[in-house]
Amino acid sequence: MPQLAMLPVVILGVLIAAAAAASSRPHPLDPLSAAEITAVRAAVLASPLVPARPLHFHYVGLDEPDKPDVLAYAYGTTTSPSFWHVMPRRALVIARAGGQSHELRVEITTRNASSVASAAAAVSSHAIHRGAGFPAFTLEEQVAAEALAPAYPPFADSVRRRGVRMDDVVCSVLPAGWFGGAVGAGAGAGAGAGAAAGRVAKMQCFVAGDTANYYARPIEGVTLVVDLDRMTIVRYKDRVTYPVPKAEGTDYRAGKAGPPLRGPVPAPGVVVQPEGRGFQIDGHVVRWANWQFHVGFDTRAGAVISLASVHDADTGLWRRVLYRGFVSEVFVPYMDPAEEWYFRTFLDAGETDLGPWAYPLQPGADCPANAAYLDGYSADQDGNPVKARNMMCVFERYAGDVAWRHTESGLPDQLITEVRPDVSLVVRMVVSAGNYDYILDWEFKTSGIIKFSVSLTGLLEVKATPYTHTDEITADAHGTLVSENTLAIYHDHYVTYHLDLDIDGTNNSFVKNVITTRRNTGDPATGGATTPRRSYWTVQREVAETEADGQVGLDTAAGPADLLFVNPGKKTRIGNEVGYRLIPVGATAASVLADDDYPQRRASYTKKQVWVTPYNKSEKWAAGTYADQSTGDDGLAAWSGRNRGIRDEDIVLWYTVGLHHIPYQEDFPVMPTLTGGFELRPSNFFERNPILRARSATTHGHSANCSCDSATAR
Amino acid sequence: MPQLAMLPVVILGVLIAAAAAASSRPHPLDPLSAAEITAVRAAVLASPLVPARPLHFHYVGLDEPDKPDVLAYAYGTTTSPSFWHVMPRRALVIARAGGQSHELRVEITTRNASSVASAAAAVSSHAIHRGAGFPAFTLEEQVAAEALAPAYPPFADSVRRRGVRMDDVVCSVLPAGWFGGAVGAGAGAGAGAGAAAGRVAKMQCFVAGDTANYYARPIEGVTLVVDLDRMTIVRYKDRVTYPVPKAEGTDYRAGKAGPPLRGPVPAPGVVVQPEGRGFQIDGHVVRWANWQFHVGFDTRAGAVISLASVHDADTGLWRRVLYRGFVSEVFVPYMDPAEEWYFRTFLDAGETDLGPWAYPLQPGADCPANAAYLDGYSADQDGNPVKARNMMCVFERYAGDVAWRHTESGLPDQLITEVRPDVSLVVRMVVSAGNYDYILDWEFKTSGIIKFSVSLTGLLEVKATPYTHTDEITADAHGTLVSENTLAIYHDHYVTYHLDLDIDGTNNSFVKNVITTRRNTGDPATGGATTPRRSYWTVQREVAETEADGQVGLDTAAGPADLLFVNPGKKTRIGNEVGYRLIPVGATAASVLADDDYPQRRASYTKKQVWVTPYNKSEKWAAGTYADQSTGDDGLAAWSGRNRGIRDEDIVLWYTVGLHHIPYQEDFPVMPTLTGGFELRPSNFFERNPILRARSATTHGHSANCSCDSATAR
Repeated sequence: MPQLAMLPVVILGVLIAAAAAASSRPHPLDPLSAAEITAVRAAVLASPLVPARPLHFHYVGLDEPDKPDVLAYAYGTTTSPSFWHVMPRRALVIARAGGQSHELRVEITTRNASSVASAAAAVSSHAIHRGAGFPAFTLEEQVAAEALAPAYPPFADSVRRRGVRMDDVVCSVLPAGWFGGAVGAGAGAGAGAGAAAGRVAKMQCFVAGDTANYYARPIEGVTLVVDLDRMTIVRYKDRVTYPVPKAEGTDYRAGKAGPPLRGPVPAPGVVVQPEGRGFQIDGHVVRWANWQFHVGFDTRAGAVISLASVHDADTGLWRRVLYRGFVSEVFVPYMDPAEEWYFRTFLDAGETDLGPWAYPLQPGADCPANAAYLDGYSADQDGNPVKARNMMCVFERYAGDVAWRHTESGLPDQLITEVRPDVSLVVRMVVSAGNYDYILDWEFKTSGIIKFSVSLTGLLEVKATPYTHTDEITADAHGTLVSENTLAIYHDHYVTYHLDLDIDGTNNSFVKNVITTRRNTGDPATGGATTPRRSYWTVQREVAETEADGQVGLDTAAGPADLLFVNPGKKTRIGNEVGYRLIPVGATAASVLADDDYPQRRASYTKKQVWVTPYNKSEKWAAGTYADQSTGDDGLAAWSGRNRGIRDEDIVLWYTVGLHHIPYQEDFPVMPTLTGGFELRPSNFFERNPILRARSATTHGHSANCSCDSATAR
Repeated sequence: MPQLAMLPVVILGVLIAAAAAASSRPHPLDPLSAAEITAVRAAVLASPLVPARPLHFHYVGLDEPDKPDVLAYAYGTTTSPSFWHVMPRRALVIARAGGQSHELRVEITTRNASSVASAAAAVSSHAIHRGAGFPAFTLEEQVAAEALAPAYPPFADSVRRRGVRMDDVVCSVLPAGWFGGAVGAGAGAGAGAGAAAGRVAKMQCFVAGDTANYYARPIEGVTLVVDLDRMTIVRYKDRVTYPVPKAEGTDYRAGKAGPPLRGPVPAPGVVVQPEGRGFQIDGHVVRWANWQFHVGFDTRAGAVISLASVHDADTGLWRRVLYRGFVSEVFVPYMDPAEEWYFRTFLDAGETDLGPWAYPLQPGADCPANAAYLDGYSADQDGNPVKARNMMCVFERYAGDVAWRHTESGLPDQLITEVRPDVSLVVRMVVSAGNYDYILDWEFKTSGIIKFSVSLTGLLEVKATPYTHTDEITADAHGTLVSENTLAIYHDHYVTYHLDLDIDGTNNSFVKNVITTRRNTGDPATGGATTPRRSYWTVQREVAETEADGQVGLDTAAGPADLLFVNPGKKTRIGNEVGYRLIPVGATAASVLADDDYPQRRASYTKKQVWVTPYNKSEKWAAGTYADQSTGDDGLAAWSGRNRGIRDEDIVLWYTVGLHHIPYQEDFPVMPTLTGGFELRPSNFFERNPILRARSATTHGHSANCSCDSATAR
């Protein structure tokens, strides 16, 4: 755990009681507005607590109110007339100044109750992070670091020796990882072999020239280490010279990749909605069919879904499913131990944030024509708000699929066919974290299912090599030769979700319905019967007591199991505990790195796909809050190691979508989408199929799907 | 293996050489036309080889020509001018007569070369099946058997005792399975404890009354055994009386399930194609984008996809991927050992055929508005053709997804976003095999991927019980109480595909790219480096030599692996073997029944998801040709046990999509769709991403997806 030297909480501002209607205020989970970010900046810069300059803002985001307060707000269980007075609107700021990482809480007070265009704020607490690790890089310091290389004479020599024009060179900052030794603010110790002391990063430079796909053209063999606080190159090595791969065949831009394909092309399908969209977006609250939820935005996580509740048509009640969910970390370790590659073990959310890489979505391509778009706001390094336009989209998906159906031919003289088409609601964000693109979908279904999809596309991270044909390869190349002089290095992708499930209430239990083979004993007392059947399986129900029981590898020898989150205090009419279950849908890889390897210690949670922990507001980031050069002392595995009770508690599911990526030539120069994910599916949550009474397509006037075909059964 | 007493081949007809153009003839893989079925019937009935009457047709289908001949036809490698003379058009007939199963080959000769409206045929061979097992039930004998129950006095007593009106009773024939002892034509031995001798089936009766969902209302405790050849009830037992579950809440028909849901409903999406469909159907050949393939139909398998080839835009060549693929078997064992349930271990394809249960698809609901439909023809019990209208659909799917994309922010003063929307082609069949509905999709993608999806929906098979609340359950109930007096019994679904892959040619190898953890030794000779990284993984390539190597359980301790089908005779420019790989997408369950249990012996292949065998035209049905009351002596595991060579051979992939189904209340009374499947993905098959040059959406005039956003990178 990071050691926070907590200073006394100082309330500098006076909270003004506002009499305005709730609708004129932001939802307590709304991300900070531009005005709020501006006010937070002013408050931090005006605070005497952090006098050092320059002061760089590494994180500015909502410090969400305490969960009971938010639940009271959202579900109306408070009776306090002064409710608004005690609901703070607060920001968390992580800043670097004076060589230290500062954590500040800033209270925001809205001056003008009828508008959020103007806000005031005041720092209420300050702490210096004295443990391992650093906050995420700012965009500005990455740009500044990348500008150092061309002006650095030894690098200019390296570029010249390779016959490359410096104008064509593009550099990219890469987190250095941690490989032993103490690292931290003021610690001054070495970051293990091959890394310099302090807040350092490495850089990889490339040749763009005739291609936009500069990742395909690395200047291999060069190690550049930059001190980000001093913004200077602190170590340089040109170890080996390999040919720079050719530009030809690497570009992916329309018109730059050759003429379009010959032969017939598919006719595009366009999704239209003659009755208009079926959803409403009110501020950050989305209402659609039997769902409502809040879509927030966080610089580190990107999209944040909160307070997802589903309407139970049989009871008329809104029922809670998910308090808060977001992508907590993206771990991408590469598998080449070479000097220029061994450290590439990225923690994309913690080291560089996901939000800044969520670029404007392209209407009609990233999202279909019927999509709506949402913006987001982050703070830049100077603390000023930056708008991320169209960084999320929301759309109704109709893929030609079926929500449920049955054809009945067993009744005399009739053939019954009932079909309900499957229309769902998707919230999408695309994160282009350097070379890779992750399409992250949250799909809500009327059946109560939430489906999570991670689609991988974008560009490979490749290594230059002298090889031009596989026949030349005699030793382990650590990758696939995808083009001449181009090795696509083996790697993994682990996208870890933080999902604070609140199944029909706050207190839940984690249940494993283990499928267990039984011999048929012939004894009814043990479930058997005097029949010739020799075996069957049954369900052994195991309720997790502590966090150790909540760690589940999907491939363990314990046997297949349904993994459920149930509310032990709520039962269906016939006595089943209400619940949701987790269903993996591909991409179930877990890490195979050695437990004592440094990157594995930093992301040790990737050894198991499922972790369940008790809710703790501070436990958000699976690889720890200060992930850059982290040492593994903070994060999911450390918290879970306390082995707290998780039965009938407010619990959180952490699920990792994992892929071992052996590249193939098709992935070059840009990779066709590869999708994996999981779904959360109501399992004895409803009394029966919740869309049994869904309207058939006929009532919408575009085609038949009811029992209109009464022809005699064949 | 079934013992076939082969009689001398007798050619009764004279094959007339036809001079007509190829286009006027059926494709050699076309299913039998109505005229051909009529001619086959006449030939069988006219043949002196099977004089016994009645003669019932249990299977009539294409006996496909030998693979080399079909390949020569499809890919034009023959130079013989008499090619047409040696391409037989032949039917396989399996008929029951005189208490025996007869296998007949029937040569079809088209009299009128300009039309297939009239055909002639002649039996060319005849064999009597003397091994275990029987052909699939006919629809007519199921209807006849179901009519026996109401007229059977002991059953009438049972119904009366339960206070049920006989008019409301509906019965359903269930295969009896095999539980020891010899079974077969003329064998006369008992079919194990609890079953009578000969070709018997069991029946389950239900109460329909006020609901179309009679499966929800079983008359529990009654065992009815019917001899299908003698069409008489041979055993009856009313063992125990449980309440018949109520009708209320079980119906799923629009208007019968209560008023539609309150509250907002999703607005339907309609897929439109302003430029028209992008595919052509010419007879049974489908051409779309860079794919072409043949869609056939077989009574047992349903849809059959053949000769799937993908166009390589870089070389201008059509390249072979799949010679022939279909669903070989659907194994659904239930997990209750009770007298009335232990035998429910269905082999849906082999025992009852899939084709007859593929009812007309509902336009706009089962398939989107832009779909085209295909019919199929089967023979009825009398051998006459029966048209299955709209039993398959073909449509272009646009689900709002992305084929590939990248946003590049690393280049100075520009932000590049390139996105290609993902439009794919789906061939869909829905099999409503009694209570369950299987939506079976073949999805072809321009990236060369073929994705296979099995979506489960329909009605549960439930058991009546005295329980009305889970508190009353003290022993293993073998299922979930989903409503009062209603237990949904635990069961599995195993959908097994036969996929004769021909990756860029006939001879292929099966390769496991096993992901293997290595310690970093620091020794470059073993792939290490003198860096602080302690571990990495690499790929250990294992080429399967024999069928034993081709049996792969996805959860084995051997570690994760990419499973590839490569053509060892074809390499990419840079030396990688061309191949496709198998990617499971959920639903990876394998059977956990005891190896010595009877149903497991009959479907022993379900212990492993992947089997690879050398191509053998006769090896089509994973649970054997005569699956009804089969004993496990024929089928995939028996063939594979010969341990033939599979390296650089014509090989077949058998893949099983598997689900352990613990029912939940939401699955009642009709189950929201649950989908699993797998994809076959080109892996070093193409030199590079084959859709790199795919047209962007802009060129189709409906929206932008190219690098039109050149705003400065944030």
